[in-house]
Amino acid sequence: MRALRLMRWNSEPELVELPEPEPGPGQVVIRVGGAGACHSDLHLMHDFQPGQMPWDPPFTLGHENAGWVHALGEGVTGLEIGQPVAVYGPWGCGFCERCRVGVETYCENTSASPAPGGGGGLGADGGMSEFMLIPHPRFLVPLPDGLDPVSAAPITDAGLTPYHAIRRSWGKLPPGSTAVVIGVGGLGHMGVQILKATTAARIIAVDTREAALKLALASGADQALLSGKDTAAEIRSATGGRGADVILDFVGSDATLAMAGAAARMVGDITIVGIAGGTLPVSFFSPPYEVSVQSTYWGSRPELIEVLDLAARGLVSPTIVTYPLERAVEAYRRLQAGELSGRAVITPS
Amino acid sequence: MRALRLMRWNSEPELVELPEPEPGPGQVVIRVGGAGACHSDLHLMHDFQPGQMPWDPPFTLGHENAGWVHALGEGVTGLEIGQPVAVYGPWGCGFCERCRVGVETYCENTSASPAPGGGGGLGADGGMSEFMLIPHPRFLVPLPDGLDPVSAAPITDAGLTPYHAIRRSWGKLPPGSTAVVIGVGGLGHMGVQILKATTAARIIAVDTREAALKLALASGADQALLSGKDTAAEIRSATGGRGADVILDFVGSDATLAMAGAAARMVGDITIVGIAGGTLPVSFFSPPYEVSVQSTYWGSRPELIEVLDLAARGLVSPTIVTYPLERAVEAYRRLQAGELSGRAVITPS
Amino acid sequence: MRALRLMRWNSEPELVELPEPEPGPGQVVIRVGGAGACHSDLHLMHDFQPGQMPWDPPFTLGHENAGWVHALGEGVTGLEIGQPVAVYGPWGCGFCERCRVGVETYCENTSASPAPGGGGGLGADGGMSEFMLIPHPRFLVPLPDGLDPVSAAPITDAGLTPYHAIRRSWGKLPPGSTAVVIGVGGLGHMGVQILKATTAARIIAVDTREAALKLALASGADQALLSGKDTAAEIRSATGGRGADVILDFVGSDATLAMAGAAARMVGDITIVGIAGGTLPVSFFSPPYEVSVQSTYWGSRPELIEVLDLAARGLVSPTIVTYPLERAVEAYRRLQAGELSGRAVITPS
Amino acid sequence: MRALRLMRWNSEPELVELPEPEPGPGQVVIRVGGAGACHSDLHLMHDFQPGQMPWDPPFTLGHENAGWVHALGEGVTGLEIGQPVAVYGPWGCGFCERCRVGVETYCENTSASPAPGGGGGLGADGGMSEFMLIPHPRFLVPLPDGLDPVSAAPITDAGLTPYHAIRRSWGKLPPGSTAVVIGVGGLGHMGVQILKATTAARIIAVDTREAALKLALASGADQALLSGKDTAAEIRSATGGRGADVILDFVGSDATLAMAGAAARMVGDITIVGIAGGTLPVSFFSPPYEVSVQSTYWGSRPELIEVLDLAARGLVSPTIVTYPLERAVEAYRRLQAGELSGRAVITPS
Repeated sequence: MRALRLMRWNSEPELVELPEPEPGPGQVVIRVGGAGACHSDLHLMHDFQPGQMPWDPPFTLGHENAGWVHALGEGVTGLEIGQPVAVYGPWGCGFCERCRVGVETYCENTSASPAPGGGGGLGADGGMSEFMLIPHPRFLVPLPDGLDPVSAAPITDAGLTPYHAIRRSWGKLPPGSTAVVIGVGGLGHMGVQILKATTAARIIAVDTREAALKLALASGADQALLSGKDTAAEIRSATGGRGADVILDFVGSDATLAMAGAAARMVGDITIVGIAGGTLPVSFFSPPYEVSVQSTYWGSRPELIEVLDLAARGLVSPTIVTYPLERAVEAYRRLQAGELSGRAVITPS
Repeated sequence: MRALRLMRWNSEPELVELPEPEPGPGQVVIRVGGAGACHSDLHLMHDFQPGQMPWDPPFTLGHENAGWVHALGEGVTGLEIGQPVAVYGPWGCGFCERCRVGVETYCENTSASPAPGGGGGLGADGGMSEFMLIPHPRFLVPLPDGLDPVSAAPITDAGLTPYHAIRRSWGKLPPGSTAVVIGVGGLGHMGVQILKATTAARIIAVDTREAALKLALASGADQALLSGKDTAAEIRSATGGRGADVILDFVGSDATLAMAGAAARMVGDITIVGIAGGTLPVSFFSPPYEVSVQSTYWGSRPELIEVLDLAARGLVSPTIVTYPLERAVEAYRRLQAGELSGRAVITPS
Repeated sequence: MRALRLMRWNSEPELVELPEPEPGPGQVVIRVGGAGACHSDLHLMHDFQPGQMPWDPPFTLGHENAGWVHALGEGVTGLEIGQPVAVYGPWGCGFCERCRVGVETYCENTSASPAPGGGGGLGADGGMSEFMLIPHPRFLVPLPDGLDPVSAAPITDAGLTPYHAIRRSWGKLPPGSTAVVIGVGGLGHMGVQILKATTAARIIAVDTREAALKLALASGADQALLSGKDTAAEIRSATGGRGADVILDFVGSDATLAMAGAAARMVGDITIVGIAGGTLPVSFFSPPYEVSVQSTYWGSRPELIEVLDLAARGLVSPTIVTYPLERAVEAYRRLQAGELSGRAVITPS
Repeated sequence: MRALRLMRWNSEPELVELPEPEPGPGQVVIRVGGAGACHSDLHLMHDFQPGQMPWDPPFTLGHENAGWVHALGEGVTGLEIGQPVAVYGPWGCGFCERCRVGVETYCENTSASPAPGGGGGLGADGGMSEFMLIPHPRFLVPLPDGLDPVSAAPITDAGLTPYHAIRRSWGKLPPGSTAVVIGVGGLGHMGVQILKATTAARIIAVDTREAALKLALASGADQALLSGKDTAAEIRSATGGRGADVILDFVGSDATLAMAGAAARMVGDITIVGIAGGTLPVSFFSPPYEVSVQSTYWGSRPELIEVLDLAARGLVSPTIVTYPLERAVEAYRRLQAGELSGRAVITPS
């Protein structure tokens, strides 16, 4: 079969021929229906040195995947050949406290994970090939009716990541509250959709690009603000002076975090989802009293089941551009160049 | 009556003669049984300039108070003359969202508060006098059986502050979890007692003073660590490498916060209670994933009711040294000099 | 002024002349904009005997009220003459644990309430008159922009009651879950709207009337079932055999509760809102494991603020028919006869 | 090896010789250290007819088990030979929503469970033999330091069951609240210990036997009441008229449930743990407003980890009487006769 592989650090991926994987005892092979091309893949291609990570290329790219069950290893039950499934991407050890409840993103025993980098497409072979080896059936989630693997693939990461960040803040988002989404790109516009579907909070979107603000309003935002030096003051003014209850920063730069700190309401949440590398200094005196500041990373398996349900019902619907496997390199090139509007999903089958 | 008043900024308080307060409609006067002397009073005496705050001296000191109902203004119901009561110290506007549920610490309309500085003893007249005017009956909480005003006074601040910080983290403190208390002074040792009484978490106390570590162990800590460059590593080692679920920093310096950031478990809490003025930089990459960093300030009225119950049952028991009103200046002098072991409570009646 | 009063038990209310109320210290008088006519008023008229309740007529009817601040008693702050306000209907003692956090429905010291029957229109004088005396400013909630007193009045009861019942079950209503609304009348159809606005749960409505099912679908239900002997089986089938996570019974008869018990999912909620007087027997073996069965009654003041926000944004919008005060008796007659479609709101001003 | 097996319905178990189990792919065999003898085993022996359950004897008894890893099937990782482990007793399908988060008690796909009756000792072979086959490693939980298999065995059921029932009610058990434990036998006295260790609620124990009340007080109860017609009134009186916040009924008869209904506080919990078969009728009018009534059954795997931690630290410590395998029949006979004080643990190794 063909596979798009990163052959060494600091290189472009290559389309190469590989033998089809065979499932060992307790393993599963899926035929891949869709594999999303993600910004973090560009980091993998360009920003690492040999020895920096506990693993090295080559490996097949693609960490947001869905497809159909193709072959079951010995002892696997509960799945049927041909069944459409999404791949839960973060692969932990499976027996630490976090993994036991499906929060494998925060596995506390990663050296025992079946994938040294944390999942298929992240060190272990991912989904940008006709077939993909799944080391344990717990990494597969049946697709709900009404959702096909191509649409499901980006939900497993670009959908799950904002879903987790929002879900943990539901308690601060009753009617009358305000949520701010900073950065309305691939993840951010799904964040707006998820807020709209699961809460009655007022949604304020902030971006530097007019087109992104349009997308935010179309996705359900109540208000869209062009980012500038007065944005925090505008948010405070739009909330009667109180500030925003929950601020989700999908950019994560020093500037956006400073804006978040200035716009937050006492006892609110500032959640850093974007990996622009910025920092917010937190002290007794700033941001306002009891504003919780934290990062979040990807999401849990129960949350994946929930966000797939939202997608199956049309409440979350990412814009998707499909590419056959032979044009995957082009998809990454356009992603890098900022020429894509929507998520590129590679369709190997 | 006599009252210990701050007459001007940057001065020592003076014992002066004042007329007894009379309750207006909807107000109450209490006879003060105990008024705690707090470190923050020293800040009031020494660290402010005219015009810096929205209010100025003179005012009577004492913001942690308890006593007996002495006189009821017109229209006040639900209280009886002679009834022992604690004073809920943070005085908000009473009608914003926060005040309506008893979280007056985080009042969003402070300009409408009956006390410009946030409470009696903080701009309005406090409890270091024979009688104290309470501008609204909601600021009074009946004492439970078994608790007298002298013992209750420090609970209203030095007890309520750690109680609030701990209670908000209960969800992260099931059996098997670890709580770290940094700084085992007046608030910190009550924090240990409160953790012991309300959770089954393992408690690790950290301090630079051997005597404080002894106090921590006597208060219920499972382990006490002398603070040093390896403390975070020791905490991580004591928790099987995972880190501490909840870290309560009663110091709040750069150094203690850095230690907290290094010792925290993913998805944990780092709560800044102490006002040493330190800062913890928070980014996507540090502290560990989804550790929530926040300050807390004092506590809510429902929480005051709860921590008074703990005190009445002996589950929280601060060490107290009483001083008559005429020796209050001496109490503050010893507090400043670090010569007090235990909370100084002034007993004007 | 004129007022619609119940003059004695077992009688029709009468329109009589009364002196305008004057606010005492700490009290407020409002000019009434809207006063909803509620089914429970019919019970007051017809189903009580002298001595049965701790209070007796005469009193002015109307327990779901909104209007404008008209006069402030001595010592009242935080309100302005002319300000539009909703009346929080359940009037408790104000100082028990429940009242202190705004849950006056569950006051534990009702003998100290300013209204022996639990609120204005329930023993104390209600809103079916030009002016209404409000015994304490905490019973008033400022109306959000975009909501007038006529529209707000039914929200304070017919909106607040389903809102409370739903809000307490949010934790069981993530995406993928199912909520069932039994009885799609005045409260039930707002229940459907509230579920739609605040959760992404699938909503199944059940009623015996085709018109009610149409209303349910128009209000946002995903599915509407004509009530019959197979309804529980249909719900179980529609949920993949698992049953419904949350069942809100706005009827509350033996039959609807039995249906609820048969349709509930393990660890779900069955909440009895309707007062048809039915009973569900609960044992270790039935309903399914850990299904929580409980009644709910009205709602809290913080919840009233939230549901008013939903109404101001158009997310909850009851059908309203207005009647001037002189036709209030007719409104009750039509309510009794089942001839009203929508909530009758009396507009005394 | 020898095994204590139920050979047919309505019979006494027999000690027979069986071949040692061999682990298939993905399976584990443990050497059994302790297997608790439980009242529900007596039901299995005496109260079932052929065809009544989806499974039939013979099978080895013992559903509360702990031991040491003895042999690993192909593909099993994360466990080491000789490691001490507890067996998580409820065996579900492993891939439904409940099983995926470790709540296998409430599996929604039980026909796909590896044990038709819900676990080893309940249809599949249990722990009353030298070795026990564990069909999946997720059913094993490593023992914390300080806990041996004999002490751990009863924790997996007699400890886990009250732990789950209490943990779900923590939110209603802050300081100032009251918990009532009805029935202070094997599960009930551990319930008292768990309440004491994890909350600061006042604990009232109720039983018909003076010895049980002594045990309750020794286990940490604040008050112990001899059950009688006035018990509900006594509880109400002990709580200032408000009633008990959480009532855990470890008996579950009509009489104890009626007492619970009469003693509960508004918005409280009545949880039916005991299987005496009683019923509590729930309506809008009774028990008090918003009291939640529900059963609970056993507990989840994350909860097992937590309660094992409590046991390892000595905060939960059941009284244990050990019996070698050849005297297991005698242990059941004494259990049946009510002659045991403490949990009988069979020690096959």
